[in-house]
Amino acid sequence: MKIQLLLTGNEIMSGHTVDSNSALISEKLLAAGYTTYRKTTIGDDLNLLTSEIINISENSDILIINGGLGPTVDDLTAQALSLATQSPLAINNQALSHVKLWCEKRQYAFNNSSKKQAIIPVACHIIDNPAGSAVGFYCHTNNCLIICTPGVPSELRRMLDESIVNLIEQYFPERQPPSTLRLQTFGIGESTLQEIVNTEYPDWPPSVALGFRAGIPQLEIKLTIEHIEHLSLQQHCLNWLKQRIGDYIIGANDTQLAASLIDILRTKNQRLCTAESCTGGKIASMITEIAGSSSAFEAALVTYSNASKQRLLNVESTLLEEHGAVSEAVVRAMAQGAIKHTACDYAIAVSGIAGPEGGTTDKPVGTVCIAWGGVNSLKTLTLYYPFPRKNFQLMVAAMSIDLLRRDLLNISTTPYYLERYKKNDKTNA
Amino acid sequence: MKIQLLLTGNEIMSGHTVDSNSALISEKLLAAGYTTYRKTTIGDDLNLLTSEIINISENSDILIINGGLGPTVDDLTAQALSLATQSPLAINNQALSHVKLWCEKRQYAFNNSSKKQAIIPVACHIIDNPAGSAVGFYCHTNNCLIICTPGVPSELRRMLDESIVNLIEQYFPERQPPSTLRLQTFGIGESTLQEIVNTEYPDWPPSVALGFRAGIPQLEIKLTIEHIEHLSLQQHCLNWLKQRIGDYIIGANDTQLAASLIDILRTKNQRLCTAESCTGGKIASMITEIAGSSSAFEAALVTYSNASKQRLLNVESTLLEEHGAVSEAVVRAMAQGAIKHTACDYAIAVSGIAGPEGGTTDKPVGTVCIAWGGVNSLKTLTLYYPFPRKNFQLMVAAMSIDLLRRDLLNISTTPYYLERYKKNDKTNA
Repeated sequence: MKIQLLLTGNEIMSGHTVDSNSALISEKLLAAGYTTYRKTTIGDDLNLLTSEIINISENSDILIINGGLGPTVDDLTAQALSLATQSPLAINNQALSHVKLWCEKRQYAFNNSSKKQAIIPVACHIIDNPAGSAVGFYCHTNNCLIICTPGVPSELRRMLDESIVNLIEQYFPERQPPSTLRLQTFGIGESTLQEIVNTEYPDWPPSVALGFRAGIPQLEIKLTIEHIEHLSLQQHCLNWLKQRIGDYIIGANDTQLAASLIDILRTKNQRLCTAESCTGGKIASMITEIAGSSSAFEAALVTYSNASKQRLLNVESTLLEEHGAVSEAVVRAMAQGAIKHTACDYAIAVSGIAGPEGGTTDKPVGTVCIAWGGVNSLKTLTLYYPFPRKNFQLMVAAMSIDLLRRDLLNISTTPYYLERYKKNDKTNA
Repeated sequence: MKIQLLLTGNEIMSGHTVDSNSALISEKLLAAGYTTYRKTTIGDDLNLLTSEIINISENSDILIINGGLGPTVDDLTAQALSLATQSPLAINNQALSHVKLWCEKRQYAFNNSSKKQAIIPVACHIIDNPAGSAVGFYCHTNNCLIICTPGVPSELRRMLDESIVNLIEQYFPERQPPSTLRLQTFGIGESTLQEIVNTEYPDWPPSVALGFRAGIPQLEIKLTIEHIEHLSLQQHCLNWLKQRIGDYIIGANDTQLAASLIDILRTKNQRLCTAESCTGGKIASMITEIAGSSSAFEAALVTYSNASKQRLLNVESTLLEEHGAVSEAVVRAMAQGAIKHTACDYAIAVSGIAGPEGGTTDKPVGTVCIAWGGVNSLKTLTLYYPFPRKNFQLMVAAMSIDLLRRDLLNISTTPYYLERYKKNDKTNA
C-alpha cells in the first residue's frame, strides 16, 4: 500500500518555517502500522497544487494533503482538489455550522473569510476539527483516498488522533502495527547511550529497534518491535536499560522532568520554592506548567537585581560584595532566604551570567551557581555552560530540577552533565 | 529557473526526525535570490532514489540532494546518482585524502566504511566539507546542476555558506532577490487582518504579497515584492498597515512582545516587577529571555499558594476570604505588595484558574484577573480564556505584558482580545 503526503505553503517552501507536520503524520501512521512512501512539498500555487494532486493520487492508495485550509487568499487546497477531482465547490452545511459555532463561541465576527472555510468540493465528506475553525475533508476518487488536513500543528494532532487514523483503518484494515515503548530521559545524550549499548550489549536483538528523539531538554528513547512475538524481548531490553541508565530515566511516555520532581515531593508531602536570578522564572514556569503542581510548589522569588536579592531574600550586602552575585555563597543564602520566607521544605536557587553581556575574565558568560536541597542539607556547585541565552536558561533550569530530583531519590552517581560542565573553582568552594 | 530539493532518509520518512535541512537550504537560497519550486522526500531505497533523480533532473535547472552520503549501507546517494547519470563509481582521490585526513586528526580508524565516502561517480566534482568526513559533490548533466549534500545539519550549513550558494551563482548569475518586510504583531488574528485589508483596501496592489506566519503568541506579517521597482509600493502598504493596525504592531523583524515593553521602560528609565499566581513565573520568564532585560526588570514574586500571597505580598487574609484568590481586589493587592517590596515603578499581577482542576460555577477554569500599572494608576480586569493550561499560561502572560505596553504608549483603543475575552462580572468590579 502506498501512502503519500503533499505539504503546501509558501512559508515551508521559503524555509521560514520548518515543517514538523509531515513528521507528525508519518509517526502517527507508523504507530498504527502504515508506512509513508513519499512526501512532496510545494508553495501556494493553484496550478502546481492541482497537478500534484492529480499525479500523486494516480500513483497512491492514500494522499494526505496538509495546509491551505485557512481563511486567506493563499489557502488553495479546496479549490485545487475541486479542479483535480472535477468536483465543483459549494458551501458544505456541516462545515458552515462548524465555522459559525466556532466564531459564535469566541465572539469572532463571522465574515466572508470565515465562510470560505466552508466552501469545499461536493464529493467530500467532513472531518471534524475539535481545535480550530477549518474542518478537514476527504474523498475517495480514482482508487485513492484523499484527505485534506489543516496546517496548524495542534489542530492536525487532534484530528489525527481522533479521526484520521480511524478513517484510514476503515478503508485499509489490513496492517501490522508495530509496538513502541517510550521512555523519557534527562542528562544523557544520544551518542553516549548508543555507545553504551554498542559496547556493553553488542548482541542487542535486531528485532527490537532502538530509536531516539532528541529534544531540549529531554531525550526520548523508543523500543519498537514489528511483530507481537517479540514482546518479551522488548521487555528484556527495557529492563536492561532501566538497570544500566535508570538514574537518567524520568518516566514513561510523555513524562516531563518537572512532573517527576513534583510527583516525588507530593509523595513525601513536602513543598518546594525557588529563588531565581539568571533563569528569571524559568524553573518556576517549567514546574507550574504541570497540572496539579500547586500540590507541591509554593512560590518563586525571581530576584533579578542585587537590590531585590537583599530586599526579598535577605542576602547580606557583605556577601554580595565579597563573593559577587554569581557565587555559591550567594545562591546558598538565596535558597536559605527563600525557605525562610515561604516556609518550604526544599529550595532551588540559581544565579549566573546568561549573556550575551555581563561576563568577566573570572566569571565568563555561561557561569552559573546552583543551590538545592532542604535548609539543613543544602548543596551548591558551579557550572560553566556557555550556550546561547535561551538555551542556557532552559538547560540550567532543567539541570537544577534534576539535581534536586536525584537527591530526593538518593541517586549518588554523578550525572554526565556534571562531569562535562562542572567548574572546580576554589574561589566558589 | 526551477530549483528542486530531494531529501532522503528513513528517519525523516518515519517521522522520527523532523527535517530542518530543507528549510535551511530554501532559506539560504532565498536570501541569495533563488526560489525553491518543490521538495520531495523519500526513504533509503535505491530504485526510488534513482528514478526520482532522473525524473526531477529532467524537469529542473538545479537539483539539490540532501542525505545519504554517510558511511553505512543505507547511504545510497552516490550509487543512485551513478545509475541515474550513467557515470560509473570510482574512488575520488580528493575525497579520499579528505576522509583520511579527517580520521587521522581525530584518531579514528580508517576502514572500509570510511573509504565508501570517497567512492563517487566519475563525472562529479568535489565540494569541500569543512565540518565532516563526507565531502559533497556535483555534476552538470542534461542541463541540470545536481548537487549532493550531507544530512548532518551543521555540515550542511557550513557547506551552503562556504561553497554551494557560490557554486549556484556561478552557474546561474541572473537572479532577482525578493525583498520582504516583516512586522511582528500581538493581539490581532490572521483572518481579522485579512478581512480588514479586503474590506478597507480592496485594491491592495497585487505586486506586494501580503503573507502571515501565525505563531503563539505573535502573528508575523510579511510584505514581499519580487521586483525592486515595487519598493515604494511596498513602503506605501507598510505605512497603511501602520496607520490602520499600528496599535497591534510591536516591532519589525523578530521583535518579541516582552522586548518592546522592556524598550519602553528603558527609555523612561523605569523598572518593572511581577506578582504571579496562575502564570507561575511565565511573565518573568518571557521578559528575562530578552537579553538586557535587567536594565528594566527588577523581580518577580510567584505566589502559587494563598499562604505565600499573604507572606510575600502582604495580601490580607480578609481580602482572600471575601473575594477569593481569583479576584480583581486580590490582584490589585498583589500588585501593590510587589511594588512596595521591590520599590519598582510598575507591576503586573495575575491570578486565575489555569485548570484542568480548580474551577467553580462562578469562576470556571479559564477565569483570570490581571492588574497592571504604577502604584497610583493600577487598572484591573477579569478575562475568561478557556484554553489548555500551557496555552492559557502563555497567552495570559502575553496579554498582561501587552496591557502594560499599551498603557505606557497611551494607546486608548480596546484590543480585540479584550472585546473577545473580557468578563463583565460585577462581583469582581
